[in-house]
Amino acid sequence: MIPTLEWLPEGVNFLDQTKLPLEETYVLATDYKQVASVIRDMITRGAMAIGVSGAMGVAIGIHRSTATSIPALNQEVAEISAHLAATRPTAVNLFWGIDRVRTLYNSLAAGNTPIPEIKAAVVALAREMYDEDIANCRQLGANGASLMPQKGTVLTHCNAGALAACGYGSALGVIRAAIERGHQIDVFADETRPYLQGARLTAWELMKDNIPTTVLCDNMSAHLMKQGRIQAVIVGADRIAANGDTANKIGTYAVSILAKEHRIPFYVAAPWATLDLATSHGDKIPIEQRDPRELTHLNGRQITPHGVAIENPAFDVTPAKYITAIITERGVLRAPFTESIAAMASQSQIPALAGVS
Amino acid sequence: MIPTLEWLPEGVNFLDQTKLPLEETYVLATDYKQVASVIRDMITRGAMAIGVSGAMGVAIGIHRSTATSIPALNQEVAEISAHLAATRPTAVNLFWGIDRVRTLYNSLAAGNTPIPEIKAAVVALAREMYDEDIANCRQLGANGASLMPQKGTVLTHCNAGALAACGYGSALGVIRAAIERGHQIDVFADETRPYLQGARLTAWELMKDNIPTTVLCDNMSAHLMKQGRIQAVIVGADRIAANGDTANKIGTYAVSILAKEHRIPFYVAAPWATLDLATSHGDKIPIEQRDPRELTHLNGRQITPHGVAIENPAFDVTPAKYITAIITERGVLRAPFTESIAAMASQSQIPALAGVS
Repeated sequence: MIPTLEWLPEGVNFLDQTKLPLEETYVLATDYKQVASVIRDMITRGAMAIGVSGAMGVAIGIHRSTATSIPALNQEVAEISAHLAATRPTAVNLFWGIDRVRTLYNSLAAGNTPIPEIKAAVVALAREMYDEDIANCRQLGANGASLMPQKGTVLTHCNAGALAACGYGSALGVIRAAIERGHQIDVFADETRPYLQGARLTAWELMKDNIPTTVLCDNMSAHLMKQGRIQAVIVGADRIAANGDTANKIGTYAVSILAKEHRIPFYVAAPWATLDLATSHGDKIPIEQRDPRELTHLNGRQITPHGVAIENPAFDVTPAKYITAIITERGVLRAPFTESIAAMASQSQIPALAGVS
Repeated sequence: MIPTLEWLPEGVNFLDQTKLPLEETYVLATDYKQVASVIRDMITRGAMAIGVSGAMGVAIGIHRSTATSIPALNQEVAEISAHLAATRPTAVNLFWGIDRVRTLYNSLAAGNTPIPEIKAAVVALAREMYDEDIANCRQLGANGASLMPQKGTVLTHCNAGALAACGYGSALGVIRAAIERGHQIDVFADETRPYLQGARLTAWELMKDNIPTTVLCDNMSAHLMKQGRIQAVIVGADRIAANGDTANKIGTYAVSILAKEHRIPFYVAAPWATLDLATSHGDKIPIEQRDPRELTHLNGRQITPHGVAIENPAFDVTPAKYITAIITERGVLRAPFTESIAAMASQSQIPALAGVS
């Protein structure tokens, strides 16, 4: 099991993803501000991982609070939540994770629950969300496995793997589930500039699982598609609008067009929490712009001329029309997505885990 | 004038493009083997530059020969040509450059021209080809200028600029010519992994000319196209088949699909010498595979896990159907390309330069 993040008595322990694949080191966050730094600096990243990290951040903030009254604690919880929510704008899971713990807090605080009990309850919820995240990944993997080729090569972009979640992964979870069911799958991993999540993280975690993996530059997949060397594409998601438009790592939109042009299925795999029903379509999803230095420097050395302008959006939006199916733990969504998403949202019950190893 | 390469009495002097943009240093090649190393190691690169470099390589080889008889020199010229031709497989200009000097040599040798006269003649031809390359770039720039937006942003991939030629450039030559004629053009430069020709070279030479330039990762252009921020795409070429299929830097094919999907014109700019009429279509163009280390290491530091498989094709082929027009010094080619290329090939005369500053 890849130790992406873990709740420990001393704090939240994060595998430092900025140091992978050559160094396996950890960062222990002992207060909520450190959790926020871990998210902002991408020591941990990936929609599902930052969702649970956000939850754990609120929980550790409440847990470590020295407030002795509910009004004082209310004030702190508002500050903690705002601080954590300001770290990254695109992945909706972050806000979902923060809100879920905060909602529990609010109801307990409104009922004048003793502070020690509140502390225990929010920590318990954050830890439950960790377990739930892994269970969701396994369930969505099971739901999507049959969509993967029986024998073939699957392209993925960025890292929607165990490292982007508490374990198992979404896009890579579907690949893992297919392999567990006897499919023979090789993976092409886009290196994913500028942060190189594919070259560094996807390659690392798939090699740990002995899944045959080849790294390529982001600009090479069209060439391989034309040669018939890619049978399916699967990616994760940072936010899915109510109409199925999907924000994911910059470059995903391009891959979806290339897949369509070569008649290759293009799948999105994400837990239901990534669905943002309050956002009607993709143009309304805020896109994070990151530091130009991610492009201008490599391993601390400058590669571009002094002073050149830089474009560095961290995400793009793939319109629903390019998506063959969206795989969630509740089931597989297909076009027309507005209808299929609304129908699934109206189901009150998340199906119980079934047939998952 | 950007000093890409220059014939000097002591040898051929090359701007070391592996060191740009931070260091402007030169490599002096004093024999043909050094010229071959310069081409193989990409100290100089770009179809036009390596075409003239190949010519200068044969010329310097003949010039420095100590052979005292035509049969001995014939043997050497065969070795010199084979050695230079083995450096890089895709750009047809290399073979064209070598063959052009060799053809002159063969005719002079067959006529028993005295060796000192042969030496002077082949050096003179190689130097003429240098001047001709710049003139061709200026003429194709003039031919293509009106295709550029009057005011807008043009995306380019890799470096088809002054650094890929003896000066001025092909794709960037068209942009320069449009700007000289009053167009207001900003350039988006794909960084062009793995070798970063866009981030390092295109940005460097355009900034030298005060042309507004923004560097982006190869995976970002689709996002910008969707936002309406790109009005045209223009790239160079390493080999154009008789049907218009165009080999160019890896990633070009993907950009052509993205341009088509967003209804943005996609132009190829290349001197006529890049047309390979002996190759009927793009599938027959050999694609160079380069060292995996170009992907696994950045600035000498490893970024991928130990032992991961790597895909590193240096070029891809853009089918003619994605190309709006091919801009050459002889004129602008449009679909159906098989017919327009054949018609232009049958014109015996290259038009004289006209109206070019």
